Amino acid sequence: MSKPLISALAQFAAATAGRNMTKAAYVAVGVGVLSMVLLTDNRANEARGWVHGLLWACLVYFVFEWVVRLRHMARTGRLALYMSSSAGIVDAIGALAVPAALVLGVEPKTAWLLSVLWVLKVVPGIPGLRQLRRVLVLESGPLVSVLVIFLMVVFLASVAEYFLERDVQPQTFGSVPAALWWAVVTLTTTGYGDVVPVTPLGRIVAALVMISGLGVFGLWTGILATGFAAETRRDNFLKTWESVSKVPFFAALGPAAIADVTHMLRTMELPARTMIIRKGAQGDCMYFIAAGEVEVDLPGKKVQLGEGAFFGEMALLGNNMRGANVSTTKVSRLLVLDLVDFRVLMARHPDLAETIDAEAKRRALENK
Amino acid sequence: MSKPLISALAQFAAATAGRNMTKAAYVAVGVGVLSMVLLTDNRANEARGWVHGLLWACLVYFVFEWVVRLRHMARTGRLALYMSSSAGIVDAIGALAVPAALVLGVEPKTAWLLSVLWVLKVVPGIPGLRQLRRVLVLESGPLVSVLVIFLMVVFLASVAEYFLERDVQPQTFGSVPAALWWAVVTLTTTGYGDVVPVTPLGRIVAALVMISGLGVFGLWTGILATGFAAETRRDNFLKTWESVSKVPFFAALGPAAIADVTHMLRTMELPARTMIIRKGAQGDCMYFIAAGEVEVDLPGKKVQLGEGAFFGEMALLGNNMRGANVSTTKVSRLLVLDLVDFRVLMARHPDLAETIDAEAKRRALENK
Amino acid sequence: MSKPLISALAQFAAATAGRNMTKAAYVAVGVGVLSMVLLTDNRANEARGWVHGLLWACLVYFVFEWVVRLRHMARTGRLALYMSSSAGIVDAIGALAVPAALVLGVEPKTAWLLSVLWVLKVVPGIPGLRQLRRVLVLESGPLVSVLVIFLMVVFLASVAEYFLERDVQPQTFGSVPAALWWAVVTLTTTGYGDVVPVTPLGRIVAALVMISGLGVFGLWTGILATGFAAETRRDNFLKTWESVSKVPFFAALGPAAIADVTHMLRTMELPARTMIIRKGAQGDCMYFIAAGEVEVDLPGKKVQLGEGAFFGEMALLGNNMRGANVSTTKVSRLLVLDLVDFRVLMARHPDLAETIDAEAKRRALENK
Amino acid sequence: MSKPLISALAQFAAATAGRNMTKAAYVAVGVGVLSMVLLTDNRANEARGWVHGLLWACLVYFVFEWVVRLRHMARTGRLALYMSSSAGIVDAIGALAVPAALVLGVEPKTAWLLSVLWVLKVVPGIPGLRQLRRVLVLESGPLVSVLVIFLMVVFLASVAEYFLERDVQPQTFGSVPAALWWAVVTLTTTGYGDVVPVTPLGRIVAALVMISGLGVFGLWTGILATGFAAETRRDNFLKTWESVSKVPFFAALGPAAIADVTHMLRTMELPARTMIIRKGAQGDCMYFIAAGEVEVDLPGKKVQLGEGAFFGEMALLGNNMRGANVSTTKVSRLLVLDLVDFRVLMARHPDLAETIDAEAKRRALENK
Repeated sequence: MSKPLISALAQFAAATAGRNMTKAAYVAVGVGVLSMVLLTDNRANEARGWVHGLLWACLVYFVFEWVVRLRHMARTGRLALYMSSSAGIVDAIGALAVPAALVLGVEPKTAWLLSVLWVLKVVPGIPGLRQLRRVLVLESGPLVSVLVIFLMVVFLASVAEYFLERDVQPQTFGSVPAALWWAVVTLTTTGYGDVVPVTPLGRIVAALVMISGLGVFGLWTGILATGFAAETRRDNFLKTWESVSKVPFFAALGPAAIADVTHMLRTMELPARTMIIRKGAQGDCMYFIAAGEVEVDLPGKKVQLGEGAFFGEMALLGNNMRGANVSTTKVSRLLVLDLVDFRVLMARHPDLAETIDAEAKRRALENK
Repeated sequence: MSKPLISALAQFAAATAGRNMTKAAYVAVGVGVLSMVLLTDNRANEARGWVHGLLWACLVYFVFEWVVRLRHMARTGRLALYMSSSAGIVDAIGALAVPAALVLGVEPKTAWLLSVLWVLKVVPGIPGLRQLRRVLVLESGPLVSVLVIFLMVVFLASVAEYFLERDVQPQTFGSVPAALWWAVVTLTTTGYGDVVPVTPLGRIVAALVMISGLGVFGLWTGILATGFAAETRRDNFLKTWESVSKVPFFAALGPAAIADVTHMLRTMELPARTMIIRKGAQGDCMYFIAAGEVEVDLPGKKVQLGEGAFFGEMALLGNNMRGANVSTTKVSRLLVLDLVDFRVLMARHPDLAETIDAEAKRRALENK
Repeated sequence: MSKPLISALAQFAAATAGRNMTKAAYVAVGVGVLSMVLLTDNRANEARGWVHGLLWACLVYFVFEWVVRLRHMARTGRLALYMSSSAGIVDAIGALAVPAALVLGVEPKTAWLLSVLWVLKVVPGIPGLRQLRRVLVLESGPLVSVLVIFLMVVFLASVAEYFLERDVQPQTFGSVPAALWWAVVTLTTTGYGDVVPVTPLGRIVAALVMISGLGVFGLWTGILATGFAAETRRDNFLKTWESVSKVPFFAALGPAAIADVTHMLRTMELPARTMIIRKGAQGDCMYFIAAGEVEVDLPGKKVQLGEGAFFGEMALLGNNMRGANVSTTKVSRLLVLDLVDFRVLMARHPDLAETIDAEAKRRALENK
Repeated sequence: MSKPLISALAQFAAATAGRNMTKAAYVAVGVGVLSMVLLTDNRANEARGWVHGLLWACLVYFVFEWVVRLRHMARTGRLALYMSSSAGIVDAIGALAVPAALVLGVEPKTAWLLSVLWVLKVVPGIPGLRQLRRVLVLESGPLVSVLVIFLMVVFLASVAEYFLERDVQPQTFGSVPAALWWAVVTLTTTGYGDVVPVTPLGRIVAALVMISGLGVFGLWTGILATGFAAETRRDNFLKTWESVSKVPFFAALGPAAIADVTHMLRTMELPARTMIIRKGAQGDCMYFIAAGEVEVDLPGKKVQLGEGAFFGEMALLGNNMRGANVSTTKVSRLLVLDLVDFRVLMARHPDLAETIDAEAKRRALENK
């Protein structure tokens, strides 16, 4: 291959090796899956050639990506770890499933269906998935019992319906498996309507099943809501705690106060060159810089604020109108303090209030 | 045009220009959209003339409204701001969509369909929409991950069903797009029943999809419930804080106590001449007047209470029966203190308790 | 009429006049509505005579009930109040609707349908309805905005579908009203399947509508859950507060402590002769008697405990096994203190702990 | 029978008698119910012999189990208690239902359907069922009122629909019972589509019913979510309290502090030889041993930690990377302290902080 191409590949490889999902990968997944979908649609017959091309391209991409990662991991001696990790397994499947099927002589149209497995590659990239998993784990006890109740209702109801309906409509309720199908469709309130009881008793049983359906829904949601509330609180705390400890402004406070503060702050990750405060807008929160840098666009001059500095406090000290544009200059992590909590915090820690007042006055003078 | 008409228009224009939605506008939206709906119904053929008339009237109204606003904004030099604001865009669409379509030679029946866009004009008028938006923004992380999970289930399930059902019922499951349609209809538990798996395996997959549907529901709701609880708390606090600070009665308290109080009070906006307390009714809260004026209808005389005054405290000091009718004389903002919180508050701040007792006694004597 | 009958009627009248719903009334509602239902079913033709008899009986009952109440209210001079109250209106409807219809010459089968209005009579009897209403009122703001969003989605979606589907299936999507029907059926995830989009674009729009459906569900529930949590807390507090103040045991405490205690206790209304504690059962709460009387069934003798006394404390002081049967002798209101809160309470108010210990010891000795 | 068989049976009987559900029982339930399901399916005709065999085997098992338990209970003098307990009744049903039916001359295919009742045997084994029941009991008030509202809507709506639709589609809306069926199917948003209103008015009523359906859902879930949150809190507290009191480490603390700690800890039951901490993993919690023993796998040597000891504290004292594998050596109960709460706890009880620091240092040195 020609030099530039090689170097380009090398560069690309480097990018790929490290991070979990490159933009390219997302594109590949999207294109690949959609092509697979098209492939099965007769209306797209004339474009079949193109579609196959796209599929092959995606496949090549994923194989390449996988190989690069294997090489990278091998070098850094984490090969075993990677191959046993979920990411590694997903990559392997993405790269091997379709070829394997083709090699094993599955007819292509079917083999390509396996490319739907590529969607699994986005899983690690889902924001807050860890959080969801934790909720499911912590609440697994009650969730399982709801599921068991669900299954019991399904079995009891389907046998009852089978007994009541089998003679009237043998073609639909002719066996318990058929009745089971009806029960699931009904208890989840999906209600296809392909299998419907017609006898009075059968309908009464069905009505009870539907109402239980509401109950199952309710319990399920209630459990998840409870778990989620607890998890959110926990998650924010962890994210915020270390950031707070980095802000000298809070260093003065004792651990109790820090725990206090941490419960109140919200973390915010921002890319570079993002407008945080727009001049003239309504303001109801102030910001502490945990990491990165922001630029305050004052009349005449621009002021940089670095790690540990704070801004937007004016909005909380009486005048709600934002006085200047503020935007990040690099990727930054900010801690947001809502007006609500600001008030409470100031009330509990007058010393903080003074520090902020003083700083605010200083700036006001300076910017005269 | 004749003088009176012009002046009437001028007056109307003034009313329109300022506020976001006049009553007239709401009527126009309602009438317009309903006429559009009727227009498409053959049972309304004979009334077609009238319906067209109504539609044209509404259109004229919206164009007029838009022009008036543009003029108003131009004068006050906020034209650019207005035209780039969502309200401005919605107004423009409402005024131009249908005419544009007609001019471009779209056949009328279709062109008028665009008048459904008029419903967008009510959006800014929706109470608590800001609150909902905030919840969606704050919880976007988890919500997006649920959505991604939703899509993954849809894709995996539909390919599986396509593979299992395509030979048995090629007309419905003949392509993955068709299977996708089935998957969405099923996972949202809508269950039209137009596409239903019939093979045993296909039905097992379907059952799993339905149960995941419950899960998606549950997570979704859990997340929103959590976010909403936090948002409500925050919102009430902000609304109440400034009102509280206006009530001299609380001026005595330190900031910590005010934060306390604020957490307990609930704000209530009332139009003029509204009955707040009905004599003889059960009472379980007292009121502070943050803005406006109320009139206490005592035997023999009427007493006015202005900003900063409080009333209804008797109900919290033992006798639950309301002693007199109380109603607003002008638009007022009241702070409501529930019996629950009253008790706690009094316990924490005995001085407040005394003030209220004293005032209550004074009034009791006075109204002897 | 014969004397006994008259006196019986008088007695019955007395019972009826006062309370809102007598058992008899519930029975009448049930019988009446079911008869009405049967009346419309051809399978019940031969029993038509009986059914009519029952219906007439119920009607007579309700008319009688209404007259008695009118008389009672007139005597106690609350006639106007009663007739304008919801209960009064419901009674009037229950008594007059059917006769009025019959008099106006509506054919009987239809006239009797109005007897379904009798179900309205149970409304005042629903437990916790007040609570539900309060939640709906307090959260009305957000709920309305969700409803408005719901309607907007319905209108926009139905016009879009009408535009996309009218040519393909004119019989189902031939007019916007038809499309509106489809939109409501879909957005509520009911999905009858009588009207289903078939064009690719139409199905994509439909998919979006279904997913919005989940969103609407989620928001709706989130709002109600939030409101309900707040309401429950408030409600328990009110119910409990006055009871607590009646228990001498807590009289010692200052108001702050009482607020504390009140937050922890749960009220429980019990009929006479109800078993509260079963000997040998696991116990994790203690009871205070706010009103009524209980009987402790000790070996050899029975001990009565009256208002203000407490029992079941042993379970919280180490030995979890209940030592004796305890049951109410008359209708009683008990305050339940869970182990959880007991621990916290004892920690905060050591004096209480001592009182309870002392009493427990005394009893232990006594029952030696 | 031969000796070994008898002894085997005896052994098995012993195992069965005591515990509620042996693994064998779960297997029997699964096999039995599935066989019953198969029996009704014509596709399984050729395997009918086998299926019958399995069913008889399960039946014999359950009868045997029941007899063994009866004998066991009789010996321990708890026969009456057992036979009146839910478990006893379920066992009796499981053992007698099918034989009774067969004896009474019900044709076999139908008689065997009763074996679905075997699923009831798993109920006692459901985790967290007690918790669910408690929620349903505590919230029964509001839940019942929602149910009543549900029924009222159903009755009013179905009569209305019957009135509006009976003439247009007499075969589906020909009687109120039929309309009731429609109402339930619609209000639960199941929507089979077998009965659908077609008149404009009928559809408007239906739309209202569907929207009420969302409301019912929402209320239901809101109530359950609220109740569940309260119950979870209560449950964890009880589980944890006694464990905490067993940990000498907390003995120093006063009751108030213990209540504090208890609110923060989470209990975790673990089987023997379970990996708790994996070396190199991210750690965000520490563990206290309430019962059992764990083994820390340090370089060179293995250290056992017994009841009352704690581990994993390093993760909370700065270095997040777990330093060693830790696994249980016997069945153990651990108390988990999340980083969140650890911080708060240390802030409130500095003495605890010191103890932990000291211990941590000691270990660090030791493992040098």
